Amino acid sequence: MNSKYFTRRTIRKYENREIDASLLEKILLAGTRTSTTGNMQVYSIIVTSDEGLKRQLAPVHFNQPMVTEAPVVLTFCADFNRFNKWCRQRDAEPGYDNFLSFMTAAIDALLVAQTVCNAAEEEGLGICYLGTTTYNADKIIDILDLPHGVVPVTTVTVGWPAEIPEQVDRLPLYAVMHREKYSDYTSEMIDDIYRAKELRQDNLGFIAENSKNTLAQVFTDVRYKKADNEFFSGKLLEVLKRQGFMP
Amino acid sequence: MNSKYFTRRTIRKYENREIDASLLEKILLAGTRTSTTGNMQVYSIIVTSDEGLKRQLAPVHFNQPMVTEAPVVLTFCADFNRFNKWCRQRDAEPGYDNFLSFMTAAIDALLVAQTVCNAAEEEGLGICYLGTTTYNADKIIDILDLPHGVVPVTTVTVGWPAEIPEQVDRLPLYAVMHREKYSDYTSEMIDDIYRAKELRQDNLGFIAENSKNTLAQVFTDVRYKKADNEFFSGKLLEVLKRQGFMP
Repeated sequence: MNSKYFTRRTIRKYENREIDASLLEKILLAGTRTSTTGNMQVYSIIVTSDEGLKRQLAPVHFNQPMVTEAPVVLTFCADFNRFNKWCRQRDAEPGYDNFLSFMTAAIDALLVAQTVCNAAEEEGLGICYLGTTTYNADKIIDILDLPHGVVPVTTVTVGWPAEIPEQVDRLPLYAVMHREKYSDYTSEMIDDIYRAKELRQDNLGFIAENSKNTLAQVFTDVRYKKADNEFFSGKLLEVLKRQGFMP
Repeated sequence: MNSKYFTRRTIRKYENREIDASLLEKILLAGTRTSTTGNMQVYSIIVTSDEGLKRQLAPVHFNQPMVTEAPVVLTFCADFNRFNKWCRQRDAEPGYDNFLSFMTAAIDALLVAQTVCNAAEEEGLGICYLGTTTYNADKIIDILDLPHGVVPVTTVTVGWPAEIPEQVDRLPLYAVMHREKYSDYTSEMIDDIYRAKELRQDNLGFIAENSKNTLAQVFTDVRYKKADNEFFSGKLLEVLKRQGFMP
């Protein structure tokens, strides 16, 4: 098996160098062979390289510098617009204006995104996912002219790596895997699973820097706060309504 | 680049042969290196091989024979249960009982699923995604004992291929890709994009067999019907409430 799976790291700094058009096409083509529900292919990929557009997208992604510094920004969208248009043009009435269909299309988009990332990394490119896509989907819709039936679900910046960061930690496999059925975690298991993460120097540094008592508090009180999650949940549900996936 | 990306096909028939435990572990480990939001790893993988459990899962997946015939069934779940337990054990109050957090966790689960599939296919294994997971998430929760905070988002059957089916068609890359911004489809583009698909012998057969006039009607009237989509949307939204991701 390609060892890139095990040695990969997210890349946030890129060389000032284009991605050859034929290489980019090959990577995206690899993505299009990914499984999709009923072979409907209800997703779209927006390939943005234009400096002006990248500058417009940057604040939506909390001004993470990857957006303007990467040669290519890929926005993966749940897309029933194309399929609905085809149906209507063929005397068929589409019934995809509902939450299940949004999930179907989001799943298509996300699986394709990950194949594109695996293929890109195999070619030596570096990628970074931007989780901010679901936070500010409304603004991305406006900037990228996404029509009714289209919702952005994730964004990936791609470029030639200009850094080799340390590989981040992961929980051990047994922490995320369950045999046969789900075995719920005892407090001893939780201690065991998170111990190594909690003892890392970088994480101890984050606790001190934020004047917190535990690493978990850095997540709940600083990085992923309840009030923000609730605010962005409301916005995202509004987007699903506006784009036609909720009554 | 590994040519498997381009030659892959979904495999629905498997040899009656186990997947070696160390190979399965290697594939799942490859999955765990996938990007996850804030390195929170808010997903779980349920690895089911038990005959009795597979028989219980089969009707949930509309009795598709892969569920009982594949040596391994992988259920990928959005999972905030483990993370929430860790927070509470560390004097931190988690704020992940909302829709945005469900999407965050679903994205983690789906990206991991696709790396697992790419790694499995690279090793010669065959995979099939089961879209029925979002239809009957409530029943999967009961069968696999998924606690509050856990929602299954996709299922993959994995095994050694006992068939080499024809590769299915895909729309041309330009049909799913947009340069810079979204360019909405004209009716001429829709005709052009779907022409090859509509002229395939297998698809012409589906039209005749179902007494329909167009291939699009096979989708809207037979395969993915509005009434079903609305019924399963309601069920899925109920699941999100029950598992704590909706007020």
